[in-house]
Amino acid sequence: MAKMIDNSYGKSGVRLLKVVRGADRHEIIEYTVDILLNGDFETVHTKGDNSKVLPTDTMKNTVYVMAKKHDFKTAEEFGKILSHHFVGSQPHISRARITITERPWQRMNTKGSPDPHAFSQAVGERHTTFVDYNGKSTSFKAGLKDLIILKSTNSGFSGYIKDDYTTLGETDDRVFATSLTATWSYNTTEADFAATRKNLRTRLLELFAEHHSLSVQHTLYEMGEKVLEEFPHVEDIHMTMPNKHFLKFNLEPFGLENENEIFYPIEEPYGLIDAKLAR
Amino acid sequence: MAKMIDNSYGKSGVRLLKVVRGADRHEIIEYTVDILLNGDFETVHTKGDNSKVLPTDTMKNTVYVMAKKHDFKTAEEFGKILSHHFVGSQPHISRARITITERPWQRMNTKGSPDPHAFSQAVGERHTTFVDYNGKSTSFKAGLKDLIILKSTNSGFSGYIKDDYTTLGETDDRVFATSLTATWSYNTTEADFAATRKNLRTRLLELFAEHHSLSVQHTLYEMGEKVLEEFPHVEDIHMTMPNKHFLKFNLEPFGLENENEIFYPIEEPYGLIDAKLAR
Amino acid sequence: MAKMIDNSYGKSGVRLLKVVRGADRHEIIEYTVDILLNGDFETVHTKGDNSKVLPTDTMKNTVYVMAKKHDFKTAEEFGKILSHHFVGSQPHISRARITITERPWQRMNTKGSPDPHAFSQAVGERHTTFVDYNGKSTSFKAGLKDLIILKSTNSGFSGYIKDDYTTLGETDDRVFATSLTATWSYNTTEADFAATRKNLRTRLLELFAEHHSLSVQHTLYEMGEKVLEEFPHVEDIHMTMPNKHFLKFNLEPFGLENENEIFYPIEEPYGLIDAKLAR
Amino acid sequence: MAKMIDNSYGKSGVRLLKVVRGADRHEIIEYTVDILLNGDFETVHTKGDNSKVLPTDTMKNTVYVMAKKHDFKTAEEFGKILSHHFVGSQPHISRARITITERPWQRMNTKGSPDPHAFSQAVGERHTTFVDYNGKSTSFKAGLKDLIILKSTNSGFSGYIKDDYTTLGETDDRVFATSLTATWSYNTTEADFAATRKNLRTRLLELFAEHHSLSVQHTLYEMGEKVLEEFPHVEDIHMTMPNKHFLKFNLEPFGLENENEIFYPIEEPYGLIDAKLAR
Repeated sequence: MAKMIDNSYGKSGVRLLKVVRGADRHEIIEYTVDILLNGDFETVHTKGDNSKVLPTDTMKNTVYVMAKKHDFKTAEEFGKILSHHFVGSQPHISRARITITERPWQRMNTKGSPDPHAFSQAVGERHTTFVDYNGKSTSFKAGLKDLIILKSTNSGFSGYIKDDYTTLGETDDRVFATSLTATWSYNTTEADFAATRKNLRTRLLELFAEHHSLSVQHTLYEMGEKVLEEFPHVEDIHMTMPNKHFLKFNLEPFGLENENEIFYPIEEPYGLIDAKLAR
Repeated sequence: MAKMIDNSYGKSGVRLLKVVRGADRHEIIEYTVDILLNGDFETVHTKGDNSKVLPTDTMKNTVYVMAKKHDFKTAEEFGKILSHHFVGSQPHISRARITITERPWQRMNTKGSPDPHAFSQAVGERHTTFVDYNGKSTSFKAGLKDLIILKSTNSGFSGYIKDDYTTLGETDDRVFATSLTATWSYNTTEADFAATRKNLRTRLLELFAEHHSLSVQHTLYEMGEKVLEEFPHVEDIHMTMPNKHFLKFNLEPFGLENENEIFYPIEEPYGLIDAKLAR
Repeated sequence: MAKMIDNSYGKSGVRLLKVVRGADRHEIIEYTVDILLNGDFETVHTKGDNSKVLPTDTMKNTVYVMAKKHDFKTAEEFGKILSHHFVGSQPHISRARITITERPWQRMNTKGSPDPHAFSQAVGERHTTFVDYNGKSTSFKAGLKDLIILKSTNSGFSGYIKDDYTTLGETDDRVFATSLTATWSYNTTEADFAATRKNLRTRLLELFAEHHSLSVQHTLYEMGEKVLEEFPHVEDIHMTMPNKHFLKFNLEPFGLENENEIFYPIEEPYGLIDAKLAR
Repeated sequence: MAKMIDNSYGKSGVRLLKVVRGADRHEIIEYTVDILLNGDFETVHTKGDNSKVLPTDTMKNTVYVMAKKHDFKTAEEFGKILSHHFVGSQPHISRARITITERPWQRMNTKGSPDPHAFSQAVGERHTTFVDYNGKSTSFKAGLKDLIILKSTNSGFSGYIKDDYTTLGETDDRVFATSLTATWSYNTTEADFAATRKNLRTRLLELFAEHHSLSVQHTLYEMGEKVLEEFPHVEDIHMTMPNKHFLKFNLEPFGLENENEIFYPIEEPYGLIDAKLAR
């Protein structure tokens, strides 16, 4: 009577550190890999027939073996290797989706020079890569998340609807902070993924900084529109900008005026603005 | 040149405690409410025109005002009140999605009797409710998440594919633990939501416990299939069962045999099994 | 020139699940064990001489081996086994401190009866045990943490100091909520640890519920004082009660009166009340 | 019968953003402030007499008012202002301890130049400051925490005790990673706190990177010893170095040799090394 209308399975949170031991110095790469497979897994569910199950433990092992066997410069390359491996490994596996979350490490400076093998985890930000292979074509998305940014002026919010439940005051000068998540799709498999990520990130920050913001939506759109203009290999961009509210502390009870100097951040509740733009 | 292919905005993390002060005893309800609106918000983004923006701060106020003005027995009722309010408040708002996450509180027993106004937060588990209103019809989903369950036997895993990357051994007796997330859709707006939630939760636990499990998928399917059989108001059910691995500790180096007694849990990596069943 | 004035080392976060496979039903015990050793470790630091280092990896193995070899009914017993083992293992190890954090599991009911081997993680609360052995005597502490409790009335706060920075209003009826941490020392090594924990926990909850609270400090003291009166084996008790603030939402702008019904919790900032009482 | 042998209270988690609006550009400071007071609070506990209670809500307000009224360049200055204020505010308050945790923000570069008012949260690392005032003298500590560092070679571990529970293999080349917490005391109230923090942090990283490590203890001691040698205003330094284990993945089952290239991080269990060095 029941029919299965969707199913997938895989291994999540496979954490990998690869040390590339160059002659003069080491490079390190830290990824967390998530694997999701689709295919003909009906009887696994309905009959407990495991003959079609590639165990998630095997998926985990495969990540480490592939990391050893292959040289790769980007998470896109590694995701392609993994997705093609899994779809190719069994006839009934039709699709593999690989998500790679990179924790960037920064080379230390010691005595004024780049250290050959010491690193610090410089940023809370994570870099994301999504590779989807269906046996015929491979599609790539990339992104960043947990990038916390703030502008201390050049942002206002006014002219909005007032109803019986409105208490918010209009302002032409507020703190605008967010934890940016952005994900963009590539319309090609041949982009210079590393350079695009680097330049696109730089432009997102600049656009955020320079925009005279009338609302979160207004700035999000500006950022997305310009990215599509400037990066021809980007087909669409999806951005989520939760408002990290830094509220003006009311100093009036103490006979003082808060000239946009003293704020207190709150974690909840938060405004959540989300939009996807395409060319 | 850019076109917006999707957008929404709202307030997340609006936390509410309502104390219902009965004559003899208090009831307390703790919700976290997330609101997402869709509608004609194009110019908000493209022109910074805020005249169509209902501020998220107003949404927050509205939650508290509605909680005061209305009596409600379930999150479904409260979600309906909120979603209808927002869609009705402005002609250009076409859809409101309300997610309510309830933290269940348990009445304390003091001196052997239920205390009239003291409570403890008994569980990590959360109860979820999703109400979606588009101006014409209201649809309801309900669920639970972070329900951590474990069976110490009656679970095996064998007969799976072995390839060059397999190291996992077959077993007919393992620990099966998961943090269950389940969400079910109602095919009616008139179900007894509270009773269904209670009974469905009980059945999920019983089905998990009693099933002779050949794999996570096998048990997940059994649970979903039986829910659809037994609860006619449930149209579909979506379950996510991350494997919370409790691995057998290898005691051989110490001259001891581990007769399925000594395990160590790991948080990462974890198998992730996900399926949606419909009638 | 530098002298070392304190040092310790050990293994933290050793997670253990022990399944006690009884004839009719299983019992499960989940502990997280932290081990800290003191002793003559000077040259380990100053000269890199590892001949005195018992590796933390070995400590981890020892936890699992001891869990296999020994039957124990309480974390106090298991902590004693471990602490005596480590101090006895090497002449230069003079002290071992064992902290055990238990995640309580609750047996499921299936078809109205206790299930023989299925469990749910019923509480967020953790049970703590501290065993300290110095080669001569063993001392025991026990406690609980993350026990979230709330009373919706029978609590006020007034009569406090008002100064230039005061805005808080007095109230004789507020929500009082806290995440209780309590740790008590035993003046004996022979107490019935399991029964004491159970009864002491019950009394803490009852005392919290029943007390007519004039402040957090007032209630904390009442709870501690009564515990010392009622439990002769408890030598002292240390309690920490962070105020989990549930603030009254201001409904006046909406023409409504908030009759202590509608509250919003905040996570930060929070009042922190801490005291230690001894007999 | 019960006597109170210790008590304190205060406000924790007071979060502050101060925007210093210079003519050409803004500076931003984000602090989380914790306040703990000691004094004659006996009757608050024993009698519910609130006439000696300075409410924690007032402490919170005071943080914001003092942040507005005073210019300060360091957390040490701000902590001194707050601690002296609280002790001076009431005769029965004898001691105030202020902990300030700073989240460092980094000025963005836009179009190749430092932006006047846009920032990103560059690091997970936090800077800590502890000011303790007892009515007569003020003492200062400073530190850092959550600084995640890794060296991919130049670290070994061998020559340790082997017993019946040892399985760890010796190595002369391993990954050494930690989340460093360091706190140092000043023997003066007149140090250049900002410069000392900056230089001491740089030296900690260099010493970690350059040391030929025979154990975590060995490197920790080296770092502490050199800090005491090089920074005359530092009286003692306390370091905690949890081992963030990056374990070598076993590639032998796959016919491959892992030449220290492929590692997997685990969060638990972790070695914990802690020592305090003084001059």
